[in-house]
Amino acid sequence: MAAQADRPVVPSDPQAVVTRRRGETLERAIYDAVLDELQRVGLTGLTMEGVAACAHTGKAALYRRWPGKEDLVVDTLDHCLPRVDDLPDHGNLRDDLLDLLRRMAAIMNSRTGCALQTLMSEIDQDHPFARLLKERVFQPRKQWFVALLDRAVERGEVQPGVVTALVAEVGPAMVAQRFHADGPPVPDDYVVSVVDDVVMPLLKP
Amino acid sequence: MAAQADRPVVPSDPQAVVTRRRGETLERAIYDAVLDELQRVGLTGLTMEGVAACAHTGKAALYRRWPGKEDLVVDTLDHCLPRVDDLPDHGNLRDDLLDLLRRMAAIMNSRTGCALQTLMSEIDQDHPFARLLKERVFQPRKQWFVALLDRAVERGEVQPGVVTALVAEVGPAMVAQRFHADGPPVPDDYVVSVVDDVVMPLLKP
Repeated sequence: MAAQADRPVVPSDPQAVVTRRRGETLERAIYDAVLDELQRVGLTGLTMEGVAACAHTGKAALYRRWPGKEDLVVDTLDHCLPRVDDLPDHGNLRDDLLDLLRRMAAIMNSRTGCALQTLMSEIDQDHPFARLLKERVFQPRKQWFVALLDRAVERGEVQPGVVTALVAEVGPAMVAQRFHADGPPVPDDYVVSVVDDVVMPLLKP
Repeated sequence: MAAQADRPVVPSDPQAVVTRRRGETLERAIYDAVLDELQRVGLTGLTMEGVAACAHTGKAALYRRWPGKEDLVVDTLDHCLPRVDDLPDHGNLRDDLLDLLRRMAAIMNSRTGCALQTLMSEIDQDHPFARLLKERVFQPRKQWFVALLDRAVERGEVQPGVVTALVAEVGPAMVAQRFHADGPPVPDDYVVSVVDDVVMPLLKP
């Protein structure tokens, strides 16, 4: 704290703020363009040129940041989905689980969710892009549920031995499957039943 | 019994047997052709002409039985998937569940499963064909798991109040989701864990 107080307070450079804001606006426009293009032409049809045109920018602006379309698409999805470190905290497991599963249902019903669906139906599991997507988008978000359950153990709500990777998968698997089988939207009372009638009884027998 | 014994024993007409066998062989060839065409050109590209050519028969043979390609495709899937009334019976719930989930995993990894995947990625949930597929292929097979659990209740293995449509969905949802997320094959030890660590604890707390 003392070291910080000694430092001179440097006012933000207004020019830098404007530039950064422009950067963020441009980035948002690029991500929007990627989602549009994914739904319009799919991953196969998507090109750096097409995204640049759709975002009203030049190809150079894209290549400055992304080496190719695969990285651009993965970054877009990672950016548009809820952040991995943004865990809900209601102070109890049931409400935390409900919150996270509701967010998941909302994503599935969103523009990003639709783009993701189109993408998943287009690529095989052995497509190199499927691995990239799994490593950088899905796998980290799977940890969400494990982290929620670990916190419930710390709070003393759940016995440590009960929490396994498999049990953490139950809620998200059921919501995802309902979405695949019946399409959007996943009804809220379904999400509530999954929490109250399946996941909670497994965790607190 | 007496009435049957009074009837003269009529030997099978060899000509009728040959005709019936031809009918079954032709039907099998048509179903094979539908699966091939689904994977090659999808539902949109599939035509009665294309299936007839692939099955080395005429269009008339198809139209004699099916009014259009939608009915032909649904009948094919219904025929190639395990029959709805063919429930396993090992005398105990755990082995019955394991058997049914293993069958499900095997189907997902089969040629019919691949054709079904291609189809599902091609049609929207609001496509009229999606409703037909749900009504005639998926919905009756969902009853499999409910029927298994009901039998376990009759045997006295499970308390009646525990069996709900939602609980019956847990096993199939997890196997399906594993397939969607990681592709085929769904590992057998995963199926065993779903039964032993998730479904059985829910049913026999």
